[in-house]
Amino acid sequence: MLDYTLFLSLVVLVSVEHASLESAPLQIENEELTHVEAIRDVETPLNLTRTNFERLDILSNRSRYVARSCKEIMDRYGEREDGLYFLTTANGMVYQTFCDMTTAGGGWTLVASVHENSYYGRCTVGDRWSSQQGNNANLPDGDGNWSNRNTFGTAEGATSDDFKTPGYYDIVAEDMSVWHVPNNFPLDHWNLAAILRYHTSNRFLRLYGGNLFELFKRYPVRYNVGSCSNRGPAVPIVYDHGDKESTKMFYGPNSRAESEPGFITFRPINNERAAMAICSGVKPTGCNTEHYCIGGGGYFHPVQCGDFPSFDWDTAVNSNGWSASKEMREAAVLLFYR
Amino acid sequence: MLDYTLFLSLVVLVSVEHASLESAPLQIENEELTHVEAIRDVETPLNLTRTNFERLDILSNRSRYVARSCKEIMDRYGEREDGLYFLTTANGMVYQTFCDMTTAGGGWTLVASVHENSYYGRCTVGDRWSSQQGNNANLPDGDGNWSNRNTFGTAEGATSDDFKTPGYYDIVAEDMSVWHVPNNFPLDHWNLAAILRYHTSNRFLRLYGGNLFELFKRYPVRYNVGSCSNRGPAVPIVYDHGDKESTKMFYGPNSRAESEPGFITFRPINNERAAMAICSGVKPTGCNTEHYCIGGGGYFHPVQCGDFPSFDWDTAVNSNGWSASKEMREAAVLLFYR
Amino acid sequence: MLDYTLFLSLVVLVSVEHASLESAPLQIENEELTHVEAIRDVETPLNLTRTNFERLDILSNRSRYVARSCKEIMDRYGEREDGLYFLTTANGMVYQTFCDMTTAGGGWTLVASVHENSYYGRCTVGDRWSSQQGNNANLPDGDGNWSNRNTFGTAEGATSDDFKTPGYYDIVAEDMSVWHVPNNFPLDHWNLAAILRYHTSNRFLRLYGGNLFELFKRYPVRYNVGSCSNRGPAVPIVYDHGDKESTKMFYGPNSRAESEPGFITFRPINNERAAMAICSGVKPTGCNTEHYCIGGGGYFHPVQCGDFPSFDWDTAVNSNGWSASKEMREAAVLLFYR
Repeated sequence: MLDYTLFLSLVVLVSVEHASLESAPLQIENEELTHVEAIRDVETPLNLTRTNFERLDILSNRSRYVARSCKEIMDRYGEREDGLYFLTTANGMVYQTFCDMTTAGGGWTLVASVHENSYYGRCTVGDRWSSQQGNNANLPDGDGNWSNRNTFGTAEGATSDDFKTPGYYDIVAEDMSVWHVPNNFPLDHWNLAAILRYHTSNRFLRLYGGNLFELFKRYPVRYNVGSCSNRGPAVPIVYDHGDKESTKMFYGPNSRAESEPGFITFRPINNERAAMAICSGVKPTGCNTEHYCIGGGGYFHPVQCGDFPSFDWDTAVNSNGWSASKEMREAAVLLFYR
Repeated sequence: MLDYTLFLSLVVLVSVEHASLESAPLQIENEELTHVEAIRDVETPLNLTRTNFERLDILSNRSRYVARSCKEIMDRYGEREDGLYFLTTANGMVYQTFCDMTTAGGGWTLVASVHENSYYGRCTVGDRWSSQQGNNANLPDGDGNWSNRNTFGTAEGATSDDFKTPGYYDIVAEDMSVWHVPNNFPLDHWNLAAILRYHTSNRFLRLYGGNLFELFKRYPVRYNVGSCSNRGPAVPIVYDHGDKESTKMFYGPNSRAESEPGFITFRPINNERAAMAICSGVKPTGCNTEHYCIGGGGYFHPVQCGDFPSFDWDTAVNSNGWSASKEMREAAVLLFYR
Repeated sequence: MLDYTLFLSLVVLVSVEHASLESAPLQIENEELTHVEAIRDVETPLNLTRTNFERLDILSNRSRYVARSCKEIMDRYGEREDGLYFLTTANGMVYQTFCDMTTAGGGWTLVASVHENSYYGRCTVGDRWSSQQGNNANLPDGDGNWSNRNTFGTAEGATSDDFKTPGYYDIVAEDMSVWHVPNNFPLDHWNLAAILRYHTSNRFLRLYGGNLFELFKRYPVRYNVGSCSNRGPAVPIVYDHGDKESTKMFYGPNSRAESEPGFITFRPINNERAAMAICSGVKPTGCNTEHYCIGGGGYFHPVQCGDFPSFDWDTAVNSNGWSASKEMREAAVLLFYR
C-alpha cells in the first residue's frame, strides 16, 4: 500500500520505534512519530487529493431538485450522471440516495440493500431483513421491514450494512434492477465491482401496487402463510453484467439443480414453511429456497434464520453442496426501482 | 385487492404460469410475466397516481422555515396544515417531524413514538423505551432514552418502529398531546385512524422543566428508585377522540379496577419496584402498573420487561384479566408537545 | 431543582394531591394539577428561555456552506465559532457534526464517539465499536465499524450513544484530537466538562492514509491478527486539558504500571490476541491493554468483550487494581480530525 521508496526516505527523517515486548512471530511495522517538523514537508505517500470545491458545489446544488425518484430527477432536470441525489416523498420527507442514471436508459433509484453482517448470528442484531428477535414462530413476520415504513442506513454505507430508504414505500415504479456488490465497496466503484447486475423490463410492478412494499402486502414474507407451491411471481430479467451461466455458478451445486436462472422471484416458501423475500437471478423449481433466496420472516429451521438464511449450509470456502459461492455470500444485494 | 375484471383481461394478454410443485392447500395466485409488450399499455389496476410536482414543491419549500417547534412554525409562518415540517434545535441541528396544526388550536410537535415490536422479546432489540440489554437489575435505567439526547427513527416510520426526535429534549413546551395509532398506519391517516387522542391543557410542563427530558430527570425511570407510592404527577386530560369510557375499555378488566381514566400519569412504580414512564389515559390507583403503563427502566419481573411491559399478561385475543385490548397492544403511542 | 420559594407559592394556587397508597419510605413530591387557570400566569420556576430567532437564523444559514471538513469551513468561510455545521462528502452526502474551531488553531471535525452503554452487556446491543454479536472468535472483526462506511448516531447525542459520521471515512486529515466528555453532557458544555482533551501535532495521519478508516485497514482491529508485539503506531500528544499525571490517574493502578502517558496508540493487541482500536492518552508497555484501550474486534476473554472492553475488571467505585476510574468509565471518547 505504501510507496516503498518514499517510505524508506521517511525512515531517515522520522524516529521510528519498533515495539519489541516479546518475540514477534508476525512482525508488523510499528512506527512512533516524534519529530513533528520532519514530517511537515513530506509529500503524502498516498492518494490524498485536495478537495475539488467546484465539484462539491455541483453536487450540493442537487439539493435544489424536488422529485420523488431518480427517474423524475432525470426527466425533470436532465441529470444523466450516476451518484447521490436528494429525493422527496409524497409527504415531503427529504432523503439522499444513489441514482443509476446510465443502465438501460437510466433513472434507477436505489431503495434498499440487503447485507449479511454475520453467518454466525441467526436472526440477531443486523438481520433487519429477516428478524433481530431470534428464531421465533410466534413472530411470523420477524422484523417486518419488507412491508412497513421503517427505514435505516445510508447510501454510502449500503455495502457495509442494511439500507432502506423512504423510496422503498413511496416511489411508484414499474421495474426493478438488482446489483450484487462485494461488501464494503465504495459507491463510486459499485457499478464496476458488481458481480451481477440485471433488471426487469416488463413493468411487472404495475400489477403489484408499484413497489415492493405493496407487493409484499399481497405476498406476505411470513412464516406458515402457505406451502412451497404458494410462492409469488417470478419475473424474467435482462442481464447488465453477468448471464444465466454466471448466475448459476454463484449458487451451490445443489441449488443449481433446483432453480432456473434468468428470473427474479418473490416470496418463495421452503419445505419447512419459512417464507423468504427474493430469489435474485433465479426461479426456484424445488423447495430448498433458503440456500439461494434472501430475506425472510421470523421463523426458519433453527440454524437457517438470517438475511441470507442458509447460504453457508455446507460451510465452504467456495460453492459446495448447498453453500453459495463466497462471492455471493459476501456481496450486498442492492435493489433499485424505475 | 386487484380489480378482478381487469385481472381477467390481463390473463388473456399475459402468460401466467401457476407454480404447482406439489398439491397446494392454500392456493395463491402466482403469475409469471413474460410478454413485455402485453403489459405496456395496460392501465394500472391500482391507485398509482402521478407525482403532483406543484404539491411537492410546496412541501419542499418548508425547508426554508427556521423554528424550534410546530407552534413556532404556526406563529412565525402562519402554517395551518398538518404534515411534515423542518425544525431546528437551539444548537442548529435540523430534522423533520410531523406537526398537528389543527387539534385544539394546533401547533403540536410530534417528538416521539413508543412502538412495541414484539411481545416475545423481553427487553431485547427494539425495546428502546425500556432496555435492549435484557432484564438486568444492574442496569436500573435500561437504555436511558427517557432522559438522554439519543434519537432514532423517522416520522413516516413512527407507527412501524420507535421514534425520538431532537425536539424531545430541545423544545420548551407547556402541554402534551397523545395519539394511539394502529401499527403501520401511514402518516396521512394517523389522525382518523387513531383509537384515542387527547391533550393536557393546564401547562403542567412549566413545572417540570418544559419537556419530558427534564421531567424524567426529576422523576427518573429507574428500577428501585422508590415504591408504588412515589409516582410522578398525574395530569388531567381533554379528549380529542374517545372518552373516559373508551379509555377504560382499552385496558384489561383487572387494570380498570385499579386505575381512573381522564389523566396522563408519569413515572409510576409497581409492586416489584420497577419504574415505568407513562400511563396513557389513566391515573393508577393500584400498583400493577406494568399492565397499563408504557416504557420503563432496565429491570422488571422477568417476563414483563419491554416497551409495553406486560400488556399481554393473560395472553388474550382481546382484553382479558390483566391483558390490554388488542387495539391498545397493537397501536403506537405518539407523543406531542406544545 | 425547583425554586423552593416559588414552589411554595404554587402550592397555594395549585391543587396538589400526594399519592399515599401505602406507607412511603422514600417520599417524592407528587403533584396533580387540576386548576388550569391557576398556572396560566405563573412565571416558570426554571430557566425556560424564549427561542432566539436571530441566533437560530444564523445557525440555519450554515446549511449554505459546502465543505468536507471543519478545517475547510474555517478556511473557506472564516467561521471561528464552535458548534454544529453542515459538511458534504466527496460523493455529495450531506450531514451535520460538531466543529471545534478554537483549540490549537481550530478546524477540528468531530467524526466519531465511543460510548459504553453497559458494562453488563458483553458485546451486545450498543457495542458498535466492538461487536453486537456476542463474543465470537468466528467473527474476528466484530461489527467492523472501524474500517467500513456504516454510520450511526447524531452529534447532539454523541455523549449518550455511539456516533459515527461520513467524515470518519471521507475526510483526508493530518492530525487527531480526543475529548473525554462525561456521559449525557450537552454539546454546548462539552469543552468545559471534558475530563481530558489532547491533540496530535505531527501530522501522522499522512502516513496512514489520512484518516482512521485507512489506518485501520493497515492495522486491522481483528482477533488473532497478531500478538502483543504487533501493535500499531503510538503517537505523541499535546495536552489541551489535563496532563500526563492526570492521564495516569484516570486508569487503574495496575494499568499505570504497564503504560506510559503522553501518547495515543492504535491497534494494541493483548495477551489473548484480542485486538483493540485506541489507547487514549497512553502507550502500552505491557499486554493487558483491555483495561485501558477502547474498541475492539469480535473476540475477547469472555467477560471482557465490549466498547470499553474491561475497564471495570476489579468492579470498583473508583480506580482500583485493573479498573479504570469512574470518571473514565463514564465518559464518551470523542474523536476529531484536522
